[in-house]
Formats: sequence, structure tokens, C-alpha cells
Amino acid sequence: MHDVTERVSILRLSEKGGTSVEDVVVRESPLTIVLNNQELATLLCSPANLEHLAIGFLFSEGLLKSKEEIEKVFVDHKRGVVRVETGKEEEFDRGALLKRLITSGCGGGASFYRTADAQGQVKVKSRVEISVSEILALVREFQRRSLVYRATGGVHSAALCDKKDILVFSEDIGRHNAIDRVLGECILSDIATEDRMVITSGRISSEIMLKVSRRGIPVVISKSAPTDLGLKLAADLGVTLVGFVRGKRMNIYTHDWRIARDAR
Amino acid sequence: MHDVTERVSILRLSEKGGTSVEDVVVRESPLTIVLNNQELATLLCSPANLEHLAIGFLFSEGLLKSKEEIEKVFVDHKRGVVRVETGKEEEFDRGALLKRLITSGCGGGASFYRTADAQGQVKVKSRVEISVSEILALVREFQRRSLVYRATGGVHSAALCDKKDILVFSEDIGRHNAIDRVLGECILSDIATEDRMVITSGRISSEIMLKVSRRGIPVVISKSAPTDLGLKLAADLGVTLVGFVRGKRMNIYTHDWRIARDAR
Repeated sequence: MHDVTERVSILRLSEKGGTSVEDVVVRESPLTIVLNNQELATLLCSPANLEHLAIGFLFSEGLLKSKEEIEKVFVDHKRGVVRVETGKEEEFDRGALLKRLITSGCGGGASFYRTADAQGQVKVKSRVEISVSEILALVREFQRRSLVYRATGGVHSAALCDKKDILVFSEDIGRHNAIDRVLGECILSDIATEDRMVITSGRISSEIMLKVSRRGIPVVISKSAPTDLGLKLAADLGVTLVGFVRGKRMNIYTHDWRIARDAR
Repeated sequence: MHDVTERVSILRLSEKGGTSVEDVVVRESPLTIVLNNQELATLLCSPANLEHLAIGFLFSEGLLKSKEEIEKVFVDHKRGVVRVETGKEEEFDRGALLKRLITSGCGGGASFYRTADAQGQVKVKSRVEISVSEILALVREFQRRSLVYRATGGVHSAALCDKKDILVFSEDIGRHNAIDRVLGECILSDIATEDRMVITSGRISSEIMLKVSRRGIPVVISKSAPTDLGLKLAADLGVTLVGFVRGKRMNIYTHDWRIARDAR
């Protein structure tokens, strides 16, 4: 946690007066991702486990499709650069890539987004089911593990889990990054994503849905709200979208057949 | 509000069972910004007042510097396109622009960010002061006006205010967009930003600080957390950064001399 936070002196004020206190804020650093010697993008992110984020980003953007393509990953933590080599001679058409670049102000993350993306993706077919009490237990554990959030209020959390346990957990100053980190770690550590769930502290916009469905993940669980486009993509792509898990309640927006009957 | 939200049928579940209810979710639409016939960027945003967002974005990214440069603004609400013409013959170097493009996963917003940006900017010199009770009153009013947030939980809010009143208010699915909208409306409606404050529901990262300081705004007030880079920029650029305004308390991270003494 010390990598990604910093102590600062602040003035804490109320109408009654103020005191100088030490506080913890989250760090923010640039990460430049280079694929086969081509600089693709620079993300602002939490400075830790940069290779997870870089690999997750490349898969989320469809620039890498299988782990076998990856020949080498060089991480320069100091300069904030990750270089990925696939050994392919062909150059990526950077102009075309950038043309597709969406600069999403929607609370985050630039995505190489095409309207065709949704149609081009395969529908998630998993028949996995999960119960309300399992979801509530997972979200409780998720919150317990969100240590950087609890110390700073400045990050989003994301996790991959099965019905019982959190398998991969990550925090980042960006909600898109937090999910890319989790997906990247799954790829690099050969952790299967099918029949499993993603939990996120963030809102579910279209970009989040595309990232998750691309990895074949059938259930997305959020403490927060979806957008209409996130919801439509979830419906189209066969993903169960669970939002506003707060207290003992939740909203099921799409494909509610995956919520196990015994618990309804 | 009907433009930016949509009614959907959802299943609301608890461990005790479920009911089908109508819910309201926030809409998410692409906005393509075209400057002098060059397509610059596509943002995912709330589909309303697109010209405010487009103009705010162009100023925030340093592509426009004064209102006098703007000759025409065409808004195609249906297709989600805003065309801005400056009448200048010179072409923007789109390649160079895109090279500088940061795809920020830090909870939002791609910015044409250069490390030189911060240094190139003029320090905010305003001697305006504001008291703790004025800040608390403004944030209460800010929350009261966040109607889309209160209905959906799916947007961020931003506002320009003076010490007493909220002058411009906006909501958007993205925290960067919400601020660009406010700044864009100020530019198009000739509302001065000097000696005034920005309030935001979102976290204060480096990109947010650069947007705000570029308009000469001396005080940024957030209900949420700053990053270390946001904080360093605020210190360097002469901006008073107020965070975590919650209940009757707040944190002052930088330039606390603008917080009026009588209220300490």
C-alpha cells in the first residue's frame, strides 16, 4: 500500500475551528504502454503492478487476443513504461487505432471503441448461477479488502471471484484501470475467467461491459449504477448485470435467470 | 432530466425475495467533436447541452484560447456531433495532437496532456477568500440541485459559484465532462470564472486541476478525495484545494490562506 499512497499534511476544518493533521492521499502516475515498439497510450494510474494493467488494457482494447501472442513483457517501474513484444513483424496501423480512439469522459478510460464491437463479440453462454446471499457475502469481503479505498477514498476496487471466494483483487485511481488490472493478472497467471464474476466499486458504463464480456465473464456485480448503454450491452451480450448492492439489497438489470432460485 | 435518463424494468432482490420495479438509469451517448473539419475526439457523455461540453473540452485541452476565436458552432443533437469553426486556415497537427493524447483510466477523461502543461500555465493570483460556513452552505445547495444523481446514482455534478450562490450547474456521466460543461457554459454565456469557485462531486486528479486552473479559478471544492498529483498541481498553480466536504467538516490541502479567518 505504501507504493500507491503518500502522507501529506493538511488542515482539517469545521465551523468550530481547525487542526493540522497528517492524511493519506492516493498516488497518481503515468504509465506508457508500448506494443512492438509503438507507443500506444499513456494512462494515469496507481503506480503498482504495471504489467497487469498494461496486459489487461491490451486485451480489453482487442490488441492482444491470447496469451500465446505475448513473447516478452518489459516493465520499467521507475519511468512508468511497459513494453510488450509479440514477435509479429506486422505493424499495427496506429493511425487507424487512434481514429477509433474514444476519449471517454464518462468517468473514465479511453477505449479503442467501435460501434461494431458489441456486435462482433460472442455472447456469454455460461450457465453459472449465484444466490443473493452469495453475492452479499462476496461484496462484504470485497469491501473488507478495499484497504487503499478505506485509507484514502481515492481509488476504485475490482475483483474476480467464484461463487465463494475472491480470487484476484485490485485497486486503482481509475475504475477502468482497476478492472483491466484484474483481467491482466488473470491472463498472466492463467486464472480462468469463464463461469466467474467480476465485482467493481464503479459505475457500469458501456466500456466496462465490453471489457468484461470480452473475457467471457457471465456476471458483473457493482456497488454503483449502470448506464443505459451498459445495460443494453449486458442484455445483448448475455451478461447478468447486478447493480446497487448496498446493505442487503441489490438490483438485477439483465439475465436474472443466473440468480439462483432458492435464494429469491 | 428526461433527456438524460431512461426508465427500465428491473428485479429488486434481497435475501427475503424479489419484486419487479421500475427504475431510472442514466443515458450514455457518444459525442464527436469536430474542429475546423477535423474529427478530434469522441466522448461518451450525457446527451444534453452538447455545445457546452464541446466548447469546454476544446478550452480544457488548450485547442481554443478565447471566445473570439469561435466563428460558428453547429450542434447535431441527433447524431451527437458538435462542429466548431474558427475560420483559421491553418490545420491542427492532428498527428501531434494524438501523440499527446493521454488515455486516462484514472476515473476518466482523455486529455491532451503534456508534462509541460503545468509549467506553461500561469499561477492563479486571485486574493478571494471564502469561509467554512460559506463552503458548507454551497455544498448543501450543490447536493440539493444534483437531481439526476439523486434519481440515478449514475452521474457526477459540477458547478461554478461565487461565495454565496451557484451560478452554473451541470451533471454528466463523467466527472471530467461535468466540469468541461460548466466551463463551456461560462465561455459561451460570458460568465466570469476569476475569483470564483468550482464544486465537484468527483475526485481531484491532475486532469481536473489542469482544467480548472486554466480558467483562472482559485478554489476547487470536492466532496471526494484528491490524488497526490492533483494536490501538487494545486500547490504549484496557486489553487486552494478543499476535499472531503462531508457533514460539517472538510480538508484543506493547499493554499489555506484563502479560507477566511473569521470562520476558523
